[in-house]
Amino acid sequence: MPAKLKVAVLGATGYSGLELTRILVRHPRVEKPVLLRRPENPDSAKTTSGSPAESGNGQLNLADVFPVLSGNGGYPLEPLEWARLKQKGIELLFLATPHQVSRSLVPEAVAEGIRVIDLSGAWRLKQAEYRAIYGFQDEDAVTAQELTAKAVYGLPELNGDRIPGACVVANPGCYATTVILALAPLLKAGFADRSKGIIADSKSGVSGAGKEPTSRTHFVSVADNLSAYSVFSHRHLGEIAEQLEITTDEITFTPHLLPIPRGILSTIYVHLARPIKAAAIESCYREFYQGKKFVRVFPTPKLPEIQFSLNTNYCDLGFCLAPDGRRLVIVSCEDNLIKGAAGQAVQNMNLMYGWGEEEGLL
Amino acid sequence: MPAKLKVAVLGATGYSGLELTRILVRHPRVEKPVLLRRPENPDSAKTTSGSPAESGNGQLNLADVFPVLSGNGGYPLEPLEWARLKQKGIELLFLATPHQVSRSLVPEAVAEGIRVIDLSGAWRLKQAEYRAIYGFQDEDAVTAQELTAKAVYGLPELNGDRIPGACVVANPGCYATTVILALAPLLKAGFADRSKGIIADSKSGVSGAGKEPTSRTHFVSVADNLSAYSVFSHRHLGEIAEQLEITTDEITFTPHLLPIPRGILSTIYVHLARPIKAAAIESCYREFYQGKKFVRVFPTPKLPEIQFSLNTNYCDLGFCLAPDGRRLVIVSCEDNLIKGAAGQAVQNMNLMYGWGEEEGLL
Amino acid sequence: MPAKLKVAVLGATGYSGLELTRILVRHPRVEKPVLLRRPENPDSAKTTSGSPAESGNGQLNLADVFPVLSGNGGYPLEPLEWARLKQKGIELLFLATPHQVSRSLVPEAVAEGIRVIDLSGAWRLKQAEYRAIYGFQDEDAVTAQELTAKAVYGLPELNGDRIPGACVVANPGCYATTVILALAPLLKAGFADRSKGIIADSKSGVSGAGKEPTSRTHFVSVADNLSAYSVFSHRHLGEIAEQLEITTDEITFTPHLLPIPRGILSTIYVHLARPIKAAAIESCYREFYQGKKFVRVFPTPKLPEIQFSLNTNYCDLGFCLAPDGRRLVIVSCEDNLIKGAAGQAVQNMNLMYGWGEEEGLL
Amino acid sequence: MPAKLKVAVLGATGYSGLELTRILVRHPRVEKPVLLRRPENPDSAKTTSGSPAESGNGQLNLADVFPVLSGNGGYPLEPLEWARLKQKGIELLFLATPHQVSRSLVPEAVAEGIRVIDLSGAWRLKQAEYRAIYGFQDEDAVTAQELTAKAVYGLPELNGDRIPGACVVANPGCYATTVILALAPLLKAGFADRSKGIIADSKSGVSGAGKEPTSRTHFVSVADNLSAYSVFSHRHLGEIAEQLEITTDEITFTPHLLPIPRGILSTIYVHLARPIKAAAIESCYREFYQGKKFVRVFPTPKLPEIQFSLNTNYCDLGFCLAPDGRRLVIVSCEDNLIKGAAGQAVQNMNLMYGWGEEEGLL
Repeated sequence: MPAKLKVAVLGATGYSGLELTRILVRHPRVEKPVLLRRPENPDSAKTTSGSPAESGNGQLNLADVFPVLSGNGGYPLEPLEWARLKQKGIELLFLATPHQVSRSLVPEAVAEGIRVIDLSGAWRLKQAEYRAIYGFQDEDAVTAQELTAKAVYGLPELNGDRIPGACVVANPGCYATTVILALAPLLKAGFADRSKGIIADSKSGVSGAGKEPTSRTHFVSVADNLSAYSVFSHRHLGEIAEQLEITTDEITFTPHLLPIPRGILSTIYVHLARPIKAAAIESCYREFYQGKKFVRVFPTPKLPEIQFSLNTNYCDLGFCLAPDGRRLVIVSCEDNLIKGAAGQAVQNMNLMYGWGEEEGLL
Repeated sequence: MPAKLKVAVLGATGYSGLELTRILVRHPRVEKPVLLRRPENPDSAKTTSGSPAESGNGQLNLADVFPVLSGNGGYPLEPLEWARLKQKGIELLFLATPHQVSRSLVPEAVAEGIRVIDLSGAWRLKQAEYRAIYGFQDEDAVTAQELTAKAVYGLPELNGDRIPGACVVANPGCYATTVILALAPLLKAGFADRSKGIIADSKSGVSGAGKEPTSRTHFVSVADNLSAYSVFSHRHLGEIAEQLEITTDEITFTPHLLPIPRGILSTIYVHLARPIKAAAIESCYREFYQGKKFVRVFPTPKLPEIQFSLNTNYCDLGFCLAPDGRRLVIVSCEDNLIKGAAGQAVQNMNLMYGWGEEEGLL
Repeated sequence: MPAKLKVAVLGATGYSGLELTRILVRHPRVEKPVLLRRPENPDSAKTTSGSPAESGNGQLNLADVFPVLSGNGGYPLEPLEWARLKQKGIELLFLATPHQVSRSLVPEAVAEGIRVIDLSGAWRLKQAEYRAIYGFQDEDAVTAQELTAKAVYGLPELNGDRIPGACVVANPGCYATTVILALAPLLKAGFADRSKGIIADSKSGVSGAGKEPTSRTHFVSVADNLSAYSVFSHRHLGEIAEQLEITTDEITFTPHLLPIPRGILSTIYVHLARPIKAAAIESCYREFYQGKKFVRVFPTPKLPEIQFSLNTNYCDLGFCLAPDGRRLVIVSCEDNLIKGAAGQAVQNMNLMYGWGEEEGLL
Repeated sequence: MPAKLKVAVLGATGYSGLELTRILVRHPRVEKPVLLRRPENPDSAKTTSGSPAESGNGQLNLADVFPVLSGNGGYPLEPLEWARLKQKGIELLFLATPHQVSRSLVPEAVAEGIRVIDLSGAWRLKQAEYRAIYGFQDEDAVTAQELTAKAVYGLPELNGDRIPGACVVANPGCYATTVILALAPLLKAGFADRSKGIIADSKSGVSGAGKEPTSRTHFVSVADNLSAYSVFSHRHLGEIAEQLEITTDEITFTPHLLPIPRGILSTIYVHLARPIKAAAIESCYREFYQGKKFVRVFPTPKLPEIQFSLNTNYCDLGFCLAPDGRRLVIVSCEDNLIKGAAGQAVQNMNLMYGWGEEEGLL
């Protein structure tokens, strides 16, 4: 057996970072990951609850943040220092950080010769108009422009051929993954009448909103509730349009906040350019995802539910055809922290290093 | 003060029936309602949980079914007998029963000279093609045809002029109420481009699925989940189309089951026939619902959430206009057991008897 | 009909304050309450979500904080100024404020001749050792000592005779209400063997933790979870011991955080001094609460559940006796925001003004 | 590497059975398990929801019942036939079946020379008085008596020496596991004053109540609720008393139904025979569980929460000591479907076959 890959994770104290750590720890091809904290942010791993981990030396430990991890020696967090990473032989860095942080760290990592899988939105978008919403300060920097051009949008089912050679993989947004995977086959086949507009009505669990306590994530605000937000203005709209090669006038995307911790269900509405039989549509999906291990196509008219993909790396797709044969409702589900974040990041790693796509993910 | 109205309720042991009973008990214009059970169904009020009610005489009491009601002498259930209702001077009967039961009882009530507000789907639809999904056995009966013609669809904001004189009011479906109220102003104003299709993506709490325990309503199936169902085939599609005077090819309606006990949020997508300013759309809504006490129009781009209308008789409406000025997202919320059922029934009663629309409902 | 009472509420922007406002608005004996905000805290009513209220003049409105309240002209918040309150004829002030705020405002109100019902823990405790946990700065002040002596612990079922004449009513803690009402009859009857210890294992919904967003109230931390906290050290322990006239060594109180928005269930364990029949215990409870409208005693062995008392002012009590006749499990439930806070405050008001105890509360 | 063990599972269509199947499929020492259905119960695996599995041949597939499992060829269910099991070389049978079914099948399996791990209560109890609550019909049968004597209570942390040689392992009850593991160290050390009574106040997620839809498991009954049940009469009381060698008069056990899908938290109250320092108690726990991989002892006063052990095979223990040094509150948590059922069953298998206790469980 060849030597295991050495990887590091920055941002393990967030929800996606926790999932990523859990997956990497079990992955047969990588060493136990080095967990990093930002040097300027010593409090980033403040203990928020009781924990059996005894970090008597004052060193931060991920098991203090997430006691579920305790019991196996723990997961110490060390400050990010490039020299130290190089010395340890780290070849790949996962960033589960806010997009501003990723924006500044990725150029540094690349300069050090470390490959990066970035879970933020910092490097996903080629078109400046879609990046505008992020308000990056370095738009004019040459390095930023070069990295923007080089970075590969890490949706393995679409860009699987470009991921192996990438030095920077921009891991897709959680919502975007469900919407793009649901629509790509139909658009490629020319089945959709884009002139009548495509609708993606998406619903996500609260972990998608991050770990920061706010009035929006307070239990009493979320429980027994449902709300729509960022209508016509959510950040993921840009990457959806860009990857599907459509305009933001052709697709309407409405996210909603569900009273569950995790999981996304997107209900997607498409007008067909001409009447098509359900069997032909099902074939279209099955052919497009032939050999793709992490997309499950349901036989029509069976539809996926959020529970079916929880704690898995699957994106589940199902559809119903209208009696008039002209309208399609597609339902697309995933676990937003796995296929929508950490699992997909590991899937990208598997491709980058030429391993089986499903290594460590089943 | 005039004598109070005498009313009876059949079906108080269901979720809508419970809400109806609670509202009627506090209503200043009606006497404490007579609660009925079906004579052929002695077990309909079986106690399902501990209760402080002591019904030593073996008589069923609604407080045994819903212990929240105990403590004020209780709510005995008596078998439905027309002669007895007449003798007691009952003028109005609420039916919170399955549609088959309503289908057979309403003609009897009318024959006895008792007015009816029926919460089921039995008498909502004028067009036979929409009724087909219910599979009524009495389609050819003269009485059924006559009552179908006479029954008024009890959406006060649309049909307020015909409700006062009605002998049978067909209380609208819960989903239908949110969708019709959101779309009626736009369609009347001619703002919608129906040729591009209207989408109603609706999400409902579990009480909408009724009290019957099934694998679909099991806590473990619903919690941490979201699922779409009855795509292109839900019963409420017919009444939505009929009331809005559009075809079922022009509107796509997708209901979803939310992991909350009650509340509905419908996200509705409309293409505009021509670019219209947000202010003009808001005016359209405000004018349409001028003086209507139970529709709250939110100033754009503020959107209602399910929590805002829980335990109220309001239907809340808000909308966002796309940057291109051609697409509209409308969000419509209600408490499915109040404005979507029991509260709207009482609102209808208020109109039938010439009282203030909001009596007993604030 | 006599003139209605004029009341004011400080703290309506919190969960208890909202419930209080809702109850007062419907109360037949009081005018629409004046809602106050702290002058030093202009942001206390920051809008946290979309709302249909249009407060174009910049004035804060409770409907902006809680959109459920919108639609009836709204509820403006005005800064607390004693002169203005006097001018308006306010006779009674409700404080739904943190205990430090109540500690400083109550002496001011009393000096102005305004009666106060305080929902915080500021004035509940007579014994200095129990107050120590609150760390009040004014322990040595004469006024504070006098008010401490004068303030009446507002549990109507126990102290109903002293509430009518009180100038300051200290509204009980939510947990304390369930525990004291469950134990008072047994202790008075001498049934409990205190030497073997009494256990109160209490579970509360998240609204009891307040509206402040923290990592403990984040949806993802609470959902799918249960946790114990403040074991042997919760603030309510003192008032429980004081009101029951036992020591904190004789009772163990363990609060838990439930994944629900509201409601408390306390499971209480008592050793009996001698074997007693279940019927005798039930009689003990029924006699103690004879004529008390807001305690419902369940016939043994039926037990209350949280749902039964939600949105009511009831405290529900039920019990099971062990086969050996020596051990008792009592279950006590309430809505923490109603009987545990706002409802009980109104019940106290009713007693202070000689009205029916249940006015505005059924 | 030696040949993998061949195992079968009856009852995979239940919640525990599903978890068991998932764990076994990943276990490095066993072949993909043979999934069985009861021959007399062809409907046991009825599809309850949409699923991508295509079982066109009419054969039941576990992926039809639990669509989360689909995508890897599926999990066909075959009727239980002893001859066929023998022919396939099955050495170990897991029963995740109702206790009556286990009661009749275990003797058959043993007669066939197949070892059994039974997840039901059928073979857990040595004392007839504790078995009485189950109402077994075969109490007088010689085989039943012999098997009762031979069966080992499969709590590895207590009975680890007797499990390796067992032909029948009775897997502990979910509640019982949390209570026994929390109390065994204290009782062995003689720290507890049993004369003052021990209290176990336990709270469980709904999956513990099984998959059968009932009014108690209906989402609307469970959500926003908490209820106590089977006070002084729950079946697990007998095994708790028997394993701890105390009487049912010495321990009071109260289960509660939590509004979450899975997880148990037991809050346990013990009087100490004499004042003991917290450090000594912590040492007592740490020594008792020295080398036990699936019990995590939290440093006092940190306490476990349900979330910390979800989806793991850990039982987490923490405690707080009263200021008087005489009372102890212990909190014990587990995932009821893992350590409380399927995980513990696999832990028992690992011991039976001499493998590492944690094989397939981390």
